[in-house]
Amino acid sequence: MKYTTQMDAARKGIITKEMEIVSKKENMDIEILREKMAKGQIVIPANKNHKSLDPEGIGSGLKTKINVNLGISRDCPNVDAELEKVKIAIDMKAEAIMDLSSFGKTEEFRQKLVNMSTAMIGTVPIYDAVGFYDKELKDITEKEFLDVVRKHGEDGVDFVTIHAGLNRDTVKTFKKNTRVTNIVSRGGSLLYAWMELNNKENPFYEYYDELLEICAAYDMTISLGDALRPGSIADGTDASQIAELMVLGELTKRAWEKNVQVIIEGPGHMKLNEIEANVILEKKLCHGAPFYVLGPLVTDIAPGYDHITSAIGGAIAASHGVDFLCYVTPAEHLRLPTLEDMKEGIIASKIAAHAGDLAKGVQGADEWDLKMSKARQKLDWEEMFSLSIDDEKARRYRKESSPEHEDSCTMCGKMCSMRNMNRIMEGKDINILRSED
Amino acid sequence: MKYTTQMDAARKGIITKEMEIVSKKENMDIEILREKMAKGQIVIPANKNHKSLDPEGIGSGLKTKINVNLGISRDCPNVDAELEKVKIAIDMKAEAIMDLSSFGKTEEFRQKLVNMSTAMIGTVPIYDAVGFYDKELKDITEKEFLDVVRKHGEDGVDFVTIHAGLNRDTVKTFKKNTRVTNIVSRGGSLLYAWMELNNKENPFYEYYDELLEICAAYDMTISLGDALRPGSIADGTDASQIAELMVLGELTKRAWEKNVQVIIEGPGHMKLNEIEANVILEKKLCHGAPFYVLGPLVTDIAPGYDHITSAIGGAIAASHGVDFLCYVTPAEHLRLPTLEDMKEGIIASKIAAHAGDLAKGVQGADEWDLKMSKARQKLDWEEMFSLSIDDEKARRYRKESSPEHEDSCTMCGKMCSMRNMNRIMEGKDINILRSED
Repeated sequence: MKYTTQMDAARKGIITKEMEIVSKKENMDIEILREKMAKGQIVIPANKNHKSLDPEGIGSGLKTKINVNLGISRDCPNVDAELEKVKIAIDMKAEAIMDLSSFGKTEEFRQKLVNMSTAMIGTVPIYDAVGFYDKELKDITEKEFLDVVRKHGEDGVDFVTIHAGLNRDTVKTFKKNTRVTNIVSRGGSLLYAWMELNNKENPFYEYYDELLEICAAYDMTISLGDALRPGSIADGTDASQIAELMVLGELTKRAWEKNVQVIIEGPGHMKLNEIEANVILEKKLCHGAPFYVLGPLVTDIAPGYDHITSAIGGAIAASHGVDFLCYVTPAEHLRLPTLEDMKEGIIASKIAAHAGDLAKGVQGADEWDLKMSKARQKLDWEEMFSLSIDDEKARRYRKESSPEHEDSCTMCGKMCSMRNMNRIMEGKDINILRSED
Repeated sequence: MKYTTQMDAARKGIITKEMEIVSKKENMDIEILREKMAKGQIVIPANKNHKSLDPEGIGSGLKTKINVNLGISRDCPNVDAELEKVKIAIDMKAEAIMDLSSFGKTEEFRQKLVNMSTAMIGTVPIYDAVGFYDKELKDITEKEFLDVVRKHGEDGVDFVTIHAGLNRDTVKTFKKNTRVTNIVSRGGSLLYAWMELNNKENPFYEYYDELLEICAAYDMTISLGDALRPGSIADGTDASQIAELMVLGELTKRAWEKNVQVIIEGPGHMKLNEIEANVILEKKLCHGAPFYVLGPLVTDIAPGYDHITSAIGGAIAASHGVDFLCYVTPAEHLRLPTLEDMKEGIIASKIAAHAGDLAKGVQGADEWDLKMSKARQKLDWEEMFSLSIDDEKARRYRKESSPEHEDSCTMCGKMCSMRNMNRIMEGKDINILRSED
């Protein structure tokens, strides 16, 4: 092998087969793609051990991608049920799946997942550590934390969330700046607990170079987690969040020195007018690295509808340059998502990504909308259904409510503007009262 | 009576009882409210014949309001079924209901609606004209169109959509600038048809002064309709739309000369990065009149999910100064909404309005979110439910998936960040493995 990672290849001027695939999918000139990868503006998460992967690029100028969270846990230990979700998520064209398994047969699940998934796979190794070692959190050693990451690399995981920006300095900032919801990142709170209980530095920060060696060995992309992301509107864009983002910027450069591909994770909860500033800050402080956000949720008051609060935030974020959206389901803040929750979350997230792509001018994004609108103008229902983000639902909705006239729908009936405009523009009369035509 | 309309009162320095109610609800100084009403920046739609009205203000500095569309039609003629929806819409705190009835016992429905509704009532009189006169559209006379408006005024309608900006000039612009989806406004397309079939000027434009006399007599607010609103991403912010908006600005001034309160209606479909410019244009060209938008829908490709595409657009619009959102349901582009569709539409729209209010800094808007986040930090589930935009759904979601530990939820179980942070910050240990606590 003439290169270690995709970034190393890009910097050496080598075109990998993954680059070729991404270049074709996105209709991006391969030299431009390679240059952006060399600069870290685009990543192709592709672990050398993930043989079934259909690679996707994430970053500048590319379509906004979405991630689906799954995994087994104490409250939901059924491997087969989760693998069923995986199949559907892939059918629904999620580009990434994060395995957040925290309990039970996590190794079996992860290996099956990597084996079957054409979508890229991400994990948060710290979730797996307690179960893997069967040791209480505070007793896990620094070396053991790193070994879990290595294990995930061996298993073919394409990107790992590592909360390396939570260090003694950012913890000081956190303690000085009171928050309403403290640390809401699951991995972040576990690391904070470990640091406090052991009075030690964050092992992922302290042994960051070793971590990078592991990532480079498998070409595992590092997704720098935002342990201090805001968990409420009140905490949005606060000192702790920005202090951590600055550390993530430093860690980005160190990763790039070792040709490790980097993604930056972002909020969280914030008022929608703060989103643009957050994207600008990330792109600046993290030197153009791809930005991956969880939401942002633009209000706290809608549990049961956080697929909507995050679709609002995600669309705005994507329009300003966010590259990768983590889906949020209606179950957020309430329970583990069911299969139906997952589907709703995927669709809301894909809508947000596409709305963002239209706004940021991703090449070809508006062709889809143009086709749909032309079908609407022609009242070509079959064409409309086939272009719908959810063909089945659109079809079902119309079928459940049959219109008087086949060309219109029950919303307007014979007052359908499309129907009447088409007639008038063809020089025909229109009628509302008569039923013969 | 010492004044004709709320605007007339405001200009004469008179404080009406409606102003007092709105001032208290919004916690806005009554003199500021009165001044803004005198300038046309705030309206209180309140027909003198709508006795059951609980008045609401719409405009600058006030909470963003939402409207629910209802009504009987050929495909859904059941008066009682629609009145049942009305009750639920009011229970769900929709501030406005537009009766879009187009067929059947529209008079009976409208009168019952006004009689029972504490929410303000709007109509689009042209929808009612064909049925009211039992005459084909093109045979309805100018005087008859105006008489329908008068009838709605007598019946106590608080605001009427009048597409007076579609005139011979704007039709010329429309014909010169090809569109993908032509005219998608139902009322707009009917008026266009009438104008083309009769080769005449738009009666609402030609007899605008007479129309204003009618509106002034009942203090019926005029909601200047956007006949030329874009119906597709491709047509967003085009020449026809802006040409009409300029006419609406002229008509606004003419209405204000007669103390008639004015709302401006807006898009429609557009890329999300165009929304801010649209709000700036409306506020400028229409001299600060309140802006009422249908969406905007930020993509065309999601029939079945247009409550989400419009929540994205509506939240952004509200954040930039839009004052009033027309709800959009999952049934948009497919069928008349069912009761369930209506509920989903109301909630999505309320989320958008509130997210906008947080961003534009409406007084007190963030208190709701702060309370919710404090409840989350305390893991006080009862408090969270009672603060939820949909208490029932939030409760049901949690109940359907019981967690191992009562304080957490099945999403994270014992890895709950709130739970663990609270323990660590109290100096306690945490455990993930042991089940005893």
